[in-house]
Amino acid sequence: MIVRPTLHWLRMLFVLRGSVLPIITPQLLAATGFATVVTALHGFILDWKVSLNFVPFSLIGLTLAIFLGFRNSTSYARYWEARTLWGVVLIETRNLMRNARVLSRNPDAAHALAPRLCAFAHAMRHQLRRTDPRADLLLFLSPEETQRVARSPSPANMTVVMAGEWLGERVRDADIEPAIVPSFDRSLSGLTAALGGCERIANTPIPFTYSVIIHRCIYLYCFWLPFGLLDAIGPMTPVIVCFIAYTFFALEALGAQIEDPFGTAPNDLPLEHMAHTIEAGVLEMVDELPRTQAPRIKDFVLL
Amino acid sequence: MIVRPTLHWLRMLFVLRGSVLPIITPQLLAATGFATVVTALHGFILDWKVSLNFVPFSLIGLTLAIFLGFRNSTSYARYWEARTLWGVVLIETRNLMRNARVLSRNPDAAHALAPRLCAFAHAMRHQLRRTDPRADLLLFLSPEETQRVARSPSPANMTVVMAGEWLGERVRDADIEPAIVPSFDRSLSGLTAALGGCERIANTPIPFTYSVIIHRCIYLYCFWLPFGLLDAIGPMTPVIVCFIAYTFFALEALGAQIEDPFGTAPNDLPLEHMAHTIEAGVLEMVDELPRTQAPRIKDFVLL
Amino acid sequence: MIVRPTLHWLRMLFVLRGSVLPIITPQLLAATGFATVVTALHGFILDWKVSLNFVPFSLIGLTLAIFLGFRNSTSYARYWEARTLWGVVLIETRNLMRNARVLSRNPDAAHALAPRLCAFAHAMRHQLRRTDPRADLLLFLSPEETQRVARSPSPANMTVVMAGEWLGERVRDADIEPAIVPSFDRSLSGLTAALGGCERIANTPIPFTYSVIIHRCIYLYCFWLPFGLLDAIGPMTPVIVCFIAYTFFALEALGAQIEDPFGTAPNDLPLEHMAHTIEAGVLEMVDELPRTQAPRIKDFVLL
Amino acid sequence: MIVRPTLHWLRMLFVLRGSVLPIITPQLLAATGFATVVTALHGFILDWKVSLNFVPFSLIGLTLAIFLGFRNSTSYARYWEARTLWGVVLIETRNLMRNARVLSRNPDAAHALAPRLCAFAHAMRHQLRRTDPRADLLLFLSPEETQRVARSPSPANMTVVMAGEWLGERVRDADIEPAIVPSFDRSLSGLTAALGGCERIANTPIPFTYSVIIHRCIYLYCFWLPFGLLDAIGPMTPVIVCFIAYTFFALEALGAQIEDPFGTAPNDLPLEHMAHTIEAGVLEMVDELPRTQAPRIKDFVLL
Amino acid sequence: MIVRPTLHWLRMLFVLRGSVLPIITPQLLAATGFATVVTALHGFILDWKVSLNFVPFSLIGLTLAIFLGFRNSTSYARYWEARTLWGVVLIETRNLMRNARVLSRNPDAAHALAPRLCAFAHAMRHQLRRTDPRADLLLFLSPEETQRVARSPSPANMTVVMAGEWLGERVRDADIEPAIVPSFDRSLSGLTAALGGCERIANTPIPFTYSVIIHRCIYLYCFWLPFGLLDAIGPMTPVIVCFIAYTFFALEALGAQIEDPFGTAPNDLPLEHMAHTIEAGVLEMVDELPRTQAPRIKDFVLL
Repeated sequence: MIVRPTLHWLRMLFVLRGSVLPIITPQLLAATGFATVVTALHGFILDWKVSLNFVPFSLIGLTLAIFLGFRNSTSYARYWEARTLWGVVLIETRNLMRNARVLSRNPDAAHALAPRLCAFAHAMRHQLRRTDPRADLLLFLSPEETQRVARSPSPANMTVVMAGEWLGERVRDADIEPAIVPSFDRSLSGLTAALGGCERIANTPIPFTYSVIIHRCIYLYCFWLPFGLLDAIGPMTPVIVCFIAYTFFALEALGAQIEDPFGTAPNDLPLEHMAHTIEAGVLEMVDELPRTQAPRIKDFVLL
Repeated sequence: MIVRPTLHWLRMLFVLRGSVLPIITPQLLAATGFATVVTALHGFILDWKVSLNFVPFSLIGLTLAIFLGFRNSTSYARYWEARTLWGVVLIETRNLMRNARVLSRNPDAAHALAPRLCAFAHAMRHQLRRTDPRADLLLFLSPEETQRVARSPSPANMTVVMAGEWLGERVRDADIEPAIVPSFDRSLSGLTAALGGCERIANTPIPFTYSVIIHRCIYLYCFWLPFGLLDAIGPMTPVIVCFIAYTFFALEALGAQIEDPFGTAPNDLPLEHMAHTIEAGVLEMVDELPRTQAPRIKDFVLL
Repeated sequence: MIVRPTLHWLRMLFVLRGSVLPIITPQLLAATGFATVVTALHGFILDWKVSLNFVPFSLIGLTLAIFLGFRNSTSYARYWEARTLWGVVLIETRNLMRNARVLSRNPDAAHALAPRLCAFAHAMRHQLRRTDPRADLLLFLSPEETQRVARSPSPANMTVVMAGEWLGERVRDADIEPAIVPSFDRSLSGLTAALGGCERIANTPIPFTYSVIIHRCIYLYCFWLPFGLLDAIGPMTPVIVCFIAYTFFALEALGAQIEDPFGTAPNDLPLEHMAHTIEAGVLEMVDELPRTQAPRIKDFVLL
Repeated sequence: MIVRPTLHWLRMLFVLRGSVLPIITPQLLAATGFATVVTALHGFILDWKVSLNFVPFSLIGLTLAIFLGFRNSTSYARYWEARTLWGVVLIETRNLMRNARVLSRNPDAAHALAPRLCAFAHAMRHQLRRTDPRADLLLFLSPEETQRVARSPSPANMTVVMAGEWLGERVRDADIEPAIVPSFDRSLSGLTAALGGCERIANTPIPFTYSVIIHRCIYLYCFWLPFGLLDAIGPMTPVIVCFIAYTFFALEALGAQIEDPFGTAPNDLPLEHMAHTIEAGVLEMVDELPRTQAPRIKDFVLL
Repeated sequence: MIVRPTLHWLRMLFVLRGSVLPIITPQLLAATGFATVVTALHGFILDWKVSLNFVPFSLIGLTLAIFLGFRNSTSYARYWEARTLWGVVLIETRNLMRNARVLSRNPDAAHALAPRLCAFAHAMRHQLRRTDPRADLLLFLSPEETQRVARSPSPANMTVVMAGEWLGERVRDADIEPAIVPSFDRSLSGLTAALGGCERIANTPIPFTYSVIIHRCIYLYCFWLPFGLLDAIGPMTPVIVCFIAYTFFALEALGAQIEDPFGTAPNDLPLEHMAHTIEAGVLEMVDELPRTQAPRIKDFVLL
């Protein structure tokens, strides 16, 4: 359970945690420093006064708004779809465990299924982060099974196959009626779909050209801005440039973070936490305790 | 049934109920007071005239519109998805009760299912609000069952398991044909999906960084605004600043309320009311009366 | 079938039917009259010149655009979802009647199902409008059945239960194979889902606070606007204020109409027409004629 | 297969085909001519100078952007949903023919199904355009069947019933196992859903009030615009008014075309082409050639 | 696996790869050159000063924003839907192979299915790009089967039929229970749906009229812009025109690329890579190695 902060509106102005400020500080200092120099020189480069006012920035705003709005909503849509797909994993593991308990004639059937589903959650987490799943898999699978899973190009998919093998054995042992198999299959296919959806998000970034165009636009905008504001607002120019640059840089940095929601940046999805929750829920259904450690939460950020 | 007010357009200007005005009054007074002071001093801080005009505010508007529009539509999407998921609970409990009545050979089967579905609705409500479900559960379950549900990390999921156990017993007793089980399972899986979706919304807020950036932007904007308007509109400055600040603060406050739709703020979802409606519908199908009290409605707000 | 007008572009400027103009005339006259007075007084209130120009209105436009765009798209989304759900009723009644005809061994089975489905369409229409369904139900059900339906908190759901009872009897009489039951159940569940979705839309308005904020914003905007335009456009002020106020008031009034798509305002859904179409389609499948009168269409508006 | 043009960027400025220019020429000439007269008279009507500048147009832009953006995206959403539903017809006819070939014990079963599915595609096309389907139906059905279909209020639905009768006969003849019937039924229900969705789009236009308000706004805007631009850009006024009016009128005309995607305007859906493709695909599965003529394509527009 | 670049913010300003800059260079040079000439002539054409300022561009921005925003989001939606549909192919081939392994009584059944699914992925890729599939098909099918597939108007659909024939044979041989067939059929129908969806995207471009209007608007805008900026920003005019034209032309070029996501432009979908991944995953399930070469990745672009 993630603790949600509710800060006073004054304190919230100064909160740093989870913020993208540390990431964008260099650029922000550069833009503000440049604006200060421009202001000190009164907009002259050598003897030539750069003739700009707010009009070009107002016109550029049109495409910039389209690009930034698109980038922001697309990145968030990827983040939220990834979260929803992990929610599907939680849902379908619950469905599978419930049905394994209540629709199988063999009371022990669920005990054999549970570790395979736990292995799925952890294999999926490692696969999306491209880390080694073996240490976690060994908590649930035999060394041979772990080898088989880890060798696969899609380890998580191999654990779904192993859950499918459990189903095939139950049918062959007449523990489960063939007419009920579609219910189990629908949940297994739900796991495959959640995995495939997450792989799609992980492997297909927003076309790189968008990032390039947006990046160029906002940097040209912010470094030309002092010339455009100088005649209108004089010494306030560096302050306003800093503020406007902050909103642009923060929007870009935040978009870059949540666009790839399986990373380890502060605003990415807490995969360890979600995999642990799924594992705990699955094992509870066979009256067992979770085998991995619950990740600690610190300052609204899961470690 | 929520009564929808249809007020005259003049009265609607002064309605207070359900409004976010009480929440944002301190900030609004602070911003307006500051604007009054700035106006009285003619924009001078000590001997230094702060040189601002409307141009920076017009440019900042670009990112601010993206942020605020995003926050508003995302918060509402969460609110509406949560409402839709509760609608799914209503739909699937109706499906389950209908099928329990008409597709089981045992005419009493539905009577055993009904309390488990009622317990689901109330357990889900308590789980999402993190309150103690036991008092409500005892109206539908035995003390042992209540203990079993309340001990679970996801009490509502445990009640779905209990409904699944009812299905398993019906199949073992040959009350229900195996070929029809997928229809029951689809509805039980619908309940699991609705629960999992609500848990996702409750446990995954919009990335906190968004709130921080939006908060900073609108407060800096509103407290700098008097300097920008002063030269253009003179003594009207505090009035206009108050009006603009009202729209910004209200947009932020309303977003914060409906972003977490399971809270108890005036604009949040009426969970008691919805759980009670589900319970009444389920029990009606076995010719019983609801066992919990209907929540009272006062001034368009469910208590 | 709704006749779609294709008017000449000149005539379309003056069409009144289906327009929201009659609804907003009082406010529009008030705003225009006030603007005329302000113009005649050259913006002076007593001896004090109200100092406003277009800048505040340009800045307020930012949040106003977010609020109005949100209100408009959300209202239409509700309208269109409601229409789609009624389309689902048409689709699923067709599926049920087709399957009742072709997948039952009893050639008369469909005749017993048809009136229950007709009753569903009419009960749903009355339930959403909170009108008395009994006169229409008696055309399709016995007086006892009508009582049973009308007494229920959700009459339409009770008719789905009665359609389910038809299915249960067919299974018990071995008219329909158990393996085919899921196909029937999917369509019955589709009716339940369409009903539940419409109930959700009917019972959960857009949070009232949105309406309050939008209402306040556009009225303050329109009544301050003459002061802001006066110095720029002089005697044209009342004309332009009237035009701008027309767009705002019309947007608000139209949003309020289609937000609750089950009302009886000119732009709401033609529920009688849709229920009649469903009834005619169902009865045609058993070679019967519709029993209710087709609602008349007048001037693109269904009566 | 629709040929997609890739023109040089210079040639594309002058392409006329598929353009809405011919439709909006009268209005465009009227607006430009009026602007020329206003410019020649220097904004005087008799002796009275109309005092306007760009400010009102900038403010009106707010609601106009909401209305036009809404109209444009809603119209396109209807167009694309209609296209997707026709895609569903292609998909489900393929599924039905595949299953009829591989899951029926009777090798000739598919031959009896194919003409009913072809008839569905053509009946749906005629129903959506309100044209007489009989000539096309006679290519696939007997005269009696054609009569039965053409007499129905929803001819396309009647062909789905006839496909369902094929399924019922296969089950009665024990060609198809009852347990496999849900697979066939899902595809037939998919056809019903595609038909119902297209009927919904065809019978429920965007509320007419939207068109009226948008129409009024853009015509008042374009005919007042010369007064607002005259003092700022002088003799360029008619050129700019023509350009701005072109974008508004084109947006409105294009929206009106694709809003009703089943019409016969250049940008509407090529229903003949799509129905022919479906027919060809269905008949290929039973090694037959298409019976209707392929529509010719000319200049990116299907005739 | 596509490598995602994370460049320093300074380097990113100058990256060329994957950029649309090479495509739009001619237009960009033309617009900038024209702006330079206009600036040198001080806005005079012969002896006539073109009287423009920023106002018309600000007003045109309204419709331009609607058109460009619509084009951008619609193009990306097509791109992402196409990617999602290819993800469905990955998911459903995994489901089919898993079920073929675990739910068939014949342990060799999966070996006969695998090549047909591989053929599907490659046939779909070739069909969407309108290239000859035979060389790739021969790796998985016999020459006779390859002929049969290649002759079909929809080769990929023919491979789904062949997978269906595998299913039909398994049912006839009693390897697979009829009650489990719906699970297999759902995955086969998923493949048909993915194929049909991609065909829809490939065959139905965004209405050509949109492209024409957008093209005209942005070129007229960019070539008139120097006259509008000249008096305000003087010698900076060509620089700013170049920047604004870059954003417009890039937005149009990028939209044109991803609108048709099955092309071979740098930002299109890597179909070879995706088909190879699907093939490798399918063959791994029967312990075989991929038969096609993995496409090489160079500079974030798949060759």
